[in-house]
Order: sequence, then C-alpha cells, then structure tokens
Amino acid sequence: MTYAGYIGRECVGEISVANRGLNYGDGLFETMRVHRGALPLWPRHLARLRDGVKRLGIALPDPVFIEARIEETIAGTEAGVLKLLLTRGDGGRGYAPPVDAQPVWTLALHPLPSMPAALRLHLCETRLAIQPALAGIKHCNRLEQVLARAEVERAGCEEGMMRDTEGRPACATSANLLVYRDGRWLTPPVERCGVAGVLRGWLLEQGLAEVADLTANDVECADALALCNAVRGILPVSMLGARAWAAHPAITDLQARLAMAYPMFSNPAVAA
Amino acid sequence: MTYAGYIGRECVGEISVANRGLNYGDGLFETMRVHRGALPLWPRHLARLRDGVKRLGIALPDPVFIEARIEETIAGTEAGVLKLLLTRGDGGRGYAPPVDAQPVWTLALHPLPSMPAALRLHLCETRLAIQPALAGIKHCNRLEQVLARAEVERAGCEEGMMRDTEGRPACATSANLLVYRDGRWLTPPVERCGVAGVLRGWLLEQGLAEVADLTANDVECADALALCNAVRGILPVSMLGARAWAAHPAITDLQARLAMAYPMFSNPAVAA
Repeated sequence: MTYAGYIGRECVGEISVANRGLNYGDGLFETMRVHRGALPLWPRHLARLRDGVKRLGIALPDPVFIEARIEETIAGTEAGVLKLLLTRGDGGRGYAPPVDAQPVWTLALHPLPSMPAALRLHLCETRLAIQPALAGIKHCNRLEQVLARAEVERAGCEEGMMRDTEGRPACATSANLLVYRDGRWLTPPVERCGVAGVLRGWLLEQGLAEVADLTANDVECADALALCNAVRGILPVSMLGARAWAAHPAITDLQARLAMAYPMFSNPAVAA
Repeated sequence: MTYAGYIGRECVGEISVANRGLNYGDGLFETMRVHRGALPLWPRHLARLRDGVKRLGIALPDPVFIEARIEETIAGTEAGVLKLLLTRGDGGRGYAPPVDAQPVWTLALHPLPSMPAALRLHLCETRLAIQPALAGIKHCNRLEQVLARAEVERAGCEEGMMRDTEGRPACATSANLLVYRDGRWLTPPVERCGVAGVLRGWLLEQGLAEVADLTANDVECADALALCNAVRGILPVSMLGARAWAAHPAITDLQARLAMAYPMFSNPAVAA
C-alpha cells in the first residue's frame, strides 16, 4: 500500500490521537478505481465528497491540490483502488466540531480486489437505521456495515443484502442493489439510508435504472439481481439465501453498456 | 493532555492510517472522571465496555493490564477526565473485521471541564436514528452527536436535547436526560438509541430514577429537568427553547444523594 497524509496542504506522517475521524468517525471517504494512471470516475466521486462536506460542515481542501496529489500517487498504476479519506481534523475532547479545524486527509493506493463471476449474498440480520441526515453520503460511521460484513464472512458468502430497520431491501454492505423486474432495473432510494453510489448515479442518469421502493417480495421475485459499485462495476448475484438466479442477458447487457462508457469495467470476471 | 497508546500490551507512539477506528468509527470509548488519582466509577465503565466489545466482536485487552496503565496515567491527578479509546485495530481495505485484529487502544488525560450551575438546552433538529444493534453502547459512530453539538454551539447554548427519528425525547448530546414529574425522576430507555450512561445506571439501580418512554409533552410539563453523565454528575436544566425552569429541590436532593456515594460530584458549580 502506498500512503500519503496531509493537514490541509501540509504533508503529515502520522494520524493524531486527537483526530476526530478516529474518535467519532467524523469524516468522509471515497474508494475509487484506478485505470492506467487515472481515475475515470473522479468527477462523480468529487461531487459526492462535496455533498458530504457540505452536509457535515467539514472544510474541503483545494480540489486542484488534491487532484495533483492523486496524480502523483497513481502515476504508472495500471489498475488499483485509491482510497481518499477526509477527516474533519484534530479536536479536543467533546463532540463540538472546532470551527477552525484543519482537515486531515489521506490517500492510500491498494491492489484491485478479486472479481468473482457472480456473488452469493447473505441476507444480513444487521439492519440499516433510517437517518436522513446521514443518508446518501459516504461518511465514516460504518459500524452497521462492519457488523453486516462480519455476518457475511461467517456465512461464507461474498456479499450481503441489508434491509433498513423497517424491513425494506436497501443495499449490499459495499455496493448498491439492482433488481430486474418486468424489463426494468430498479434500485432503492438513498434518502433514508444507504450510500448514493457513484455507479448507481451514472446508471440513473443514463436512464438504465430507476429508483423504486422495493419490498422483500420484489427481490425474491426478481428476474435478475446485480450489485454495482465504483470499484467492481456491475456484478451478477447468483444466490440470496435459498433463492438462486441463473445468468441473465439483462446483466450482460448492462455490463456491456457500462464497459462502452468506462472500458475499465469490461470483462469483470478476468480483471482480477 | 497526557497520552499513551497501545497495540494489545505493546506501547505505540502513533495511530496507523489503517486503523479501523479512523476509517469506520470501529471502536468504543469511555470518558471517566478522575478523582484523587483514582476512577471511582471504573467498574461501571468497564462493564459497559465489556458489553460493547461483546456486541461489536472487538477483542478486549486484559483489564488488569489496562487498569495498571490507567493507574500510572492518573497517579497524582487530583481531578480530571480520562478518555479510554479502544479500536478494533488495524485492517486492510473493506468493512470485514479481520479475525485476528489486535486492538489498538489509547488513554488520554484531560483537565476537568467547567461546570455551569445550570444548563440552557437547545432543541436539536438532528435526530437519533433507531438502531437497536448499536443502542446503549459507547461506540465511535458519533456523527449524529457531532451534528447536534454543532447546532448547540450555533444556538449559544450549553447542551442540546435530542429526539429520536420518531420524535421521542432521547438524551442530550453527551448526557442522559432526567425528567421530574409527579414526584419521580424518569429517563428514556436506551434500547432503540442513546447511550446507557454510567451515572444513569447508578440512579436506576438505587431506585432514584425509572425508565419511561417520554413524549415532548412530558418534557414540556416537567416540574424539573436535569442531565447526568459520569464526568459532570447531575446538572440542572434552566431552559429548553422558550420553556424555563427555576431551581428545584428535587435536583438538589438528587445531587446530594449522588455526592454521598461519590464525593467527587459534590458542589458541581465550584468544581471547575
């Protein structure tokens, strides 16, 4: 892993014990696919980050400066994952965000994860709380996902489907949910809980998917199920609990359309 | 601030960028009142921490070792606040908690905060989400409190009352709520949201307070309102929005009973 840390524009070697990300999860992050020394989805990640800092009241370091540091970090990298972590910065004891906090942010370059041809999903018992104040943004309060992901590991699955506390299917632990019914791709809203995935946003803009409140029955009766995120693209779901799905041309079609716009997502099963 | 950090039993000087507390708020903490080189409420803090590690699946370092390090840290300190932060430890990218994670924990000694004679409360717009999986324990996913506390600061108040997403009064940003009605002290449950405060636990055990679902009207019509936490004891509330309360003998009585058991909480207005 390559790593670099900054306070504002200044390089820092370590994270302080007073960092508010460490103490309260008071920060945001973006996990981005690196392709041939570039981040093809960067403008979308930056837009979500801008939404996040606005809603949490965190200072955003100059994007031009961030972009220059990103460029240095990923230069020469054919494929990988870059994580940008932006914390509010250091603070004293207590929840009150210091008005003059200098954001502390880091860049870490990781190898590309493996891409299974299809995913088996565990139906997670851990629910997502309904919290409109935090829904949509990619903040660092992720204990729900941590607990759900621990369930997935215990179940020996590749991913998990999470429902909200009112029982509605919401998302996977680190991907958005795509449900194919009656010839249309549907994905749950992100105004109550969940993250406004970058790839989900692209699919909605392209008219390739629509937002819809989904029930457990909608998922159970789906013609096809897939997950999407900005690192792995679109991945078919082969199983959820006792329900199994065969390969479906609607998924291949969606993958092909994505690969036309973003070639890094072509042939995901081999990209690992 | 005095600070010490550990991986298990090993001293560490800095926090890694891979720390899961930093990345996901994947940790727990306790904020404890130091009195004459000791932590009178330590057994209660440890009990809550044990509940937290059990529910989050975090390894608890040997309490005897922790206690020895605490003793060294607070030796000779007449009054102060000790914060114990326990993170799951370091991890790779992704939410899955590493099965062999070595917990990283820190101790930080702070001065005692000021103790106003009475608190003016802001009625926070930021709500607490209903999440039984995380309710009660003192985990590090605290963005709701951070946002609520920012509201409190903007309103120029000392604390804020938070309601859950269904409108029920729940707690203050960093204290439990005590509502005096018909000769009884009532405090909201902590099974849906909020933290099982150490002092709240003592009051319940002593039969000095009872758990009750409260409505906004119960608070509005209260004969007296107070907050309690393990650092500041019991503090009267003088104002919530447009509603004001005069000093009430029930609060003085509760403070006196607490001071009998824990002398460090006597005369809070002067303790600063």
